[in-house]
Amino acid sequence: MADHRTDQKMDPRIDEHARILVEWSTEVKRGDMVIITANPDAHDLVTAVTKYVARAGGSPTVIMNSQEFERAFFDAADDDTIQLFPKHVKAALEESDVLIGISSPVNTKALADVDPKKIMMRRIVQKEIGEIQIQKRWVGTVHPNRTLAQQANMGLEQYRDFVYGATLIDWEKESKNMYLMKEHLENHNDIRYVGPETDLHASTEGRIWVASVGKNNMPSGEVFTAPVEDTVEGHIYFDIPFMFQGKIIEGVRLKFEKGEVVDYSAEKSENVLKEILEVDEGSKRLGEMAIGTNRGIKRYTLNMLFDEKIGDTIHCALGRAYPDCNGTNTSAVHVDIIKSMKEGEIKAGDETIYSRGKYFFEK
Amino acid sequence: MADHRTDQKMDPRIDEHARILVEWSTEVKRGDMVIITANPDAHDLVTAVTKYVARAGGSPTVIMNSQEFERAFFDAADDDTIQLFPKHVKAALEESDVLIGISSPVNTKALADVDPKKIMMRRIVQKEIGEIQIQKRWVGTVHPNRTLAQQANMGLEQYRDFVYGATLIDWEKESKNMYLMKEHLENHNDIRYVGPETDLHASTEGRIWVASVGKNNMPSGEVFTAPVEDTVEGHIYFDIPFMFQGKIIEGVRLKFEKGEVVDYSAEKSENVLKEILEVDEGSKRLGEMAIGTNRGIKRYTLNMLFDEKIGDTIHCALGRAYPDCNGTNTSAVHVDIIKSMKEGEIKAGDETIYSRGKYFFEK
Repeated sequence: MADHRTDQKMDPRIDEHARILVEWSTEVKRGDMVIITANPDAHDLVTAVTKYVARAGGSPTVIMNSQEFERAFFDAADDDTIQLFPKHVKAALEESDVLIGISSPVNTKALADVDPKKIMMRRIVQKEIGEIQIQKRWVGTVHPNRTLAQQANMGLEQYRDFVYGATLIDWEKESKNMYLMKEHLENHNDIRYVGPETDLHASTEGRIWVASVGKNNMPSGEVFTAPVEDTVEGHIYFDIPFMFQGKIIEGVRLKFEKGEVVDYSAEKSENVLKEILEVDEGSKRLGEMAIGTNRGIKRYTLNMLFDEKIGDTIHCALGRAYPDCNGTNTSAVHVDIIKSMKEGEIKAGDETIYSRGKYFFEK
Repeated sequence: MADHRTDQKMDPRIDEHARILVEWSTEVKRGDMVIITANPDAHDLVTAVTKYVARAGGSPTVIMNSQEFERAFFDAADDDTIQLFPKHVKAALEESDVLIGISSPVNTKALADVDPKKIMMRRIVQKEIGEIQIQKRWVGTVHPNRTLAQQANMGLEQYRDFVYGATLIDWEKESKNMYLMKEHLENHNDIRYVGPETDLHASTEGRIWVASVGKNNMPSGEVFTAPVEDTVEGHIYFDIPFMFQGKIIEGVRLKFEKGEVVDYSAEKSENVLKEILEVDEGSKRLGEMAIGTNRGIKRYTLNMLFDEKIGDTIHCALGRAYPDCNGTNTSAVHVDIIKSMKEGEIKAGDETIYSRGKYFFEK
């Protein structure tokens, strides 16, 4: 039986999750054309989102995604077909105001042995689609299912608690602290992470700090910018593992000179780290420096939607910068790596933004 | 667990069903934009359809339908929202070449207590969508799930056998007989059903007989026309039950004079039959007279996609005619009612098209 039938009564947290996506994240209003993209297991959350979209006066339609559809496509398509542009999808997106993306995967490893060249070929085709999406009001989230629970090393009930603990918080209140942090960070021209085996700093002159308050990611909880590329200097030890193309990389150490990685190591999968650094010129430079603020996320789960927002952490991304920070890095990749700061400090100019378990506004 | 995980190995019949939908029904070709609409339980068939679409060089995208999404929409939407036109859906359809609709319902009764006025209001909004759809290459089918099996009074395995018995046949061979029947019917100017408690006849002058060979319905297997409305005369007893808006109607008797129903009765739910006849002027007249030819369908299941195609039956529809028959009835409803002909005859002019278990081409 599908998940949507095993629920005797809908978990009220699903309803609240939907309300946040529609009312807070995307602010659906009368007349809005709304596209929900979802995997089959997300049926219950889509039902609840449909309710809130309708209540707000919007028109919802649902696109079904599945890793197994993708797998079947890659197995059967020749190169011309992989490169065929989906005009019908583009047309629907162009006529839409709001996009709500819900991940509740069938099988996160379904594409494991598909030729990466084919996947990259397809990604290029879909780039134009992605560019239309980000011009709309959009949010990405997950609906907890067994696949995600397994990937996170948890039982389903525990994973549900984890997801809703991170998601069902008072975003209005939360956002006030995050905007305050943005303001303080923008009063200075640099950023510095100090801690065990770590002293990394960069100029942020002319850059914007973005407070991610649950408008595009749910859960959210990070404040990020793009450093001035050539000014990144120092060394850093990332103690939280992360996944890249299905492989877990752990214990990354990086050393920067004039913005470029000049030395590196990893305790696990160093060869994959090497591959990342060799993708292009941008991939050995930082495109993002960020502070995670979501205390509802209490552990890493190898899902970047959650991990990069863990409270009391920082993260850096090798590769592409977000244009809304005024960033310049145009790498083909963007790989986030995370570090716990419970024994560290974050400084901007002469101000301490965070120190050993406390943000400045908690003092 | 969802159906797509309980299958250890995909039932090869799912693969064959997909092949027929893509290669026979919609003839997908290189460059085609394809929209598949499906319920979550149809995941496996959609996966297989995706494979065949990709193999043919098409670009598939999937719209997820659910009776529970609809229910949530109706429960939350005000009249303005119900009447809001889905521009994004229209845009996607306009850019598409092929539509493959797969029904594998979540719950066929999910809308049972929604105000019929709201449903009718929405149907009017979606009329324009439907008109775009029928200008494309399109097919509707089912993917057997527990919901449909239950509705058909069967176990899941038995229902799977039923569906594939009706669907996985040699459509090329089948279509030859049906086109032959069309040819013979069009050599005459009238049609007559004779049998127990039955003698009904009508002129078919200037009308087209359509051979439904699996291009728009899968399964298919019927040859149908629209009678000249005023010429329908006689009486008929329909011995096969059917469903209208969730209610089962059984043992219908109709008497026609100058095309209009002048007397009627039903052994069960006569009040619903009365409602149908009173919808409008067209609903007391016939819009369709047809011959079912699919011997793979061995019993009725209260699902018109199958029931009207049962071999050795005829059916008539009260209400709207199909324009491709040159029909004139423009009623808001189209209600098919079916009769077994195993003890009857179908005549066109002086030719016997069918008699007691045999079509003319089987003699």
